[in-house]
Amino acid sequence: MENTKRSSAQPVLVVGSVAFDAIKTPTDGNNRILGGSATYGAVASSFFAPTRLVGVVGNDFSEADIARLKGRGIDLEGLQIDQSGETFFWSGVYGENFATRQTLETRLNVFAHFKPTLPAEYKSSPYALLGNIQPSLQSMVLDQLTAGSFTVADTMNLWIDHARPDLLALLPRVSLFILNDEEAHQLTGEANVYLAGPKLQSLGPKIVLIKKGAHGAVLFHPEGLFSIPAYPVTRVADPTGAGDSFAGALVGCLAAAHDTSIATMRRAVAFATVTASLTVESLGIDRLEQAGWEEIDRRYAALIKLTTIGCS
Amino acid sequence: MENTKRSSAQPVLVVGSVAFDAIKTPTDGNNRILGGSATYGAVASSFFAPTRLVGVVGNDFSEADIARLKGRGIDLEGLQIDQSGETFFWSGVYGENFATRQTLETRLNVFAHFKPTLPAEYKSSPYALLGNIQPSLQSMVLDQLTAGSFTVADTMNLWIDHARPDLLALLPRVSLFILNDEEAHQLTGEANVYLAGPKLQSLGPKIVLIKKGAHGAVLFHPEGLFSIPAYPVTRVADPTGAGDSFAGALVGCLAAAHDTSIATMRRAVAFATVTASLTVESLGIDRLEQAGWEEIDRRYAALIKLTTIGCS
Repeated sequence: MENTKRSSAQPVLVVGSVAFDAIKTPTDGNNRILGGSATYGAVASSFFAPTRLVGVVGNDFSEADIARLKGRGIDLEGLQIDQSGETFFWSGVYGENFATRQTLETRLNVFAHFKPTLPAEYKSSPYALLGNIQPSLQSMVLDQLTAGSFTVADTMNLWIDHARPDLLALLPRVSLFILNDEEAHQLTGEANVYLAGPKLQSLGPKIVLIKKGAHGAVLFHPEGLFSIPAYPVTRVADPTGAGDSFAGALVGCLAAAHDTSIATMRRAVAFATVTASLTVESLGIDRLEQAGWEEIDRRYAALIKLTTIGCS
Repeated sequence: MENTKRSSAQPVLVVGSVAFDAIKTPTDGNNRILGGSATYGAVASSFFAPTRLVGVVGNDFSEADIARLKGRGIDLEGLQIDQSGETFFWSGVYGENFATRQTLETRLNVFAHFKPTLPAEYKSSPYALLGNIQPSLQSMVLDQLTAGSFTVADTMNLWIDHARPDLLALLPRVSLFILNDEEAHQLTGEANVYLAGPKLQSLGPKIVLIKKGAHGAVLFHPEGLFSIPAYPVTRVADPTGAGDSFAGALVGCLAAAHDTSIATMRRAVAFATVTASLTVESLGIDRLEQAGWEEIDRRYAALIKLTTIGCS
């Protein structure tokens, strides 16, 4: 691809949680899935650009887990290993058709004391993904980054409910804000995404991306609008991490092109869409890891074919 | 536009209900709106191809109503005027954000005895829209059409619930079947549109189009898939007739190009999308009528811009 895997690809910093998840769906289940926003984000980004991870794991994080991330070429100099406890653990159960998700247990473990600390080399990262963690921790990352970095922040309903002032303080400092349609509604009071988008831009970030799950995504960019349907998936195995890998692929793609014009962002959102479609086809990162670049690229071509209206 | 308003445009037959609607929304209301599936369908089609209407009206249908349809160039030879009673009347109220619709009253009036009868010239119509009415009446239209007509059938939840055998008998006889995602789920048992689409094709129609309201539409065609988001609308005034005008514009566009390949259908679905976006911006056909071809064409160009990923 013209805009990826180029030798000019810039490094991407991914900061977030690294976790073990125990997930039960109507059809699948696993009690020890390598997950967390930084894991999904960094693995997705790694297909497009050199990727660096900042996070924390505990004394139960194995050599095999490390090898798995290194296998994707991810730089782990910023991964803190805290021997005082176990890795962040989350367990949840999905209902029929993934219409509901219930958290059974959250054990923060070593993540409770996590302070993101950027190794010297990471501080000048030209692209950074602030994965879904507390907005105050996301702000700490910005404090350490040198000016001029293109920063992308993801969030979730929990922070809109319980850390809204921190989130509102973060937003003017980020370049691109990603959230889903329900969160956009919750944060702006607007149910219509085309009204919510500009309201979110007025909170600070020049670029806003609203995800609509199985209905695709809408990009609000100073140069214009872009709307894309989801990649057709006929069997969802586990939606966990879809948003994180969407964000990771998006940032990776921008770093690969070293450009954030709307033309590049259209392609990046399309690559993010197909990367997320692979994530949901298995528990954890299994499917994405196995599918690899070839399948991402094949789906990208299929997505262009799926959405092209024709010549005007 | 290359594919519309050409001198080779074929005539379109539209059959359905002509009604007066009394509608109340959270922001608007009117007790005598010219509506019905044939009205919306024929008006939409009239922007693209010569259009003929078959339906029935009563003794309260005024010269001004007739003039309004004729003003769009619609051939009304097939419009029956039944002096024995009043025109089909429906009244309903929409809830907040149009999440709910409650029927207050339905008076079939002269529609209760309606039997679609095609004037001789209409029987060879190369394109026909069987607007949303009872499937048994839609079948009566097919009985009168000569072989080789490209036929499009629309439906609604009422017929899936109460006239399923008639609908299942109709489907193998139509070329293209249009319905929304909830109806597709209801008819096939599949919540996933990409599973429901092929199931619907297996019921007979070679081409199936599933509408997803504010989330766009997906086309299932023997030559491939096509997915399109909705045109961005920031103020919905009244969604009544959106589906009917979508269908009318779609058929009109195919008739204008006199082609039903996937390449033409992609453009037709896009024109249908923008035509429906105008319909929802007012009660009845007011906005669509006033906007005219220029606004349809402008929105079509904007929709291409909105959805283009880029060069592969």
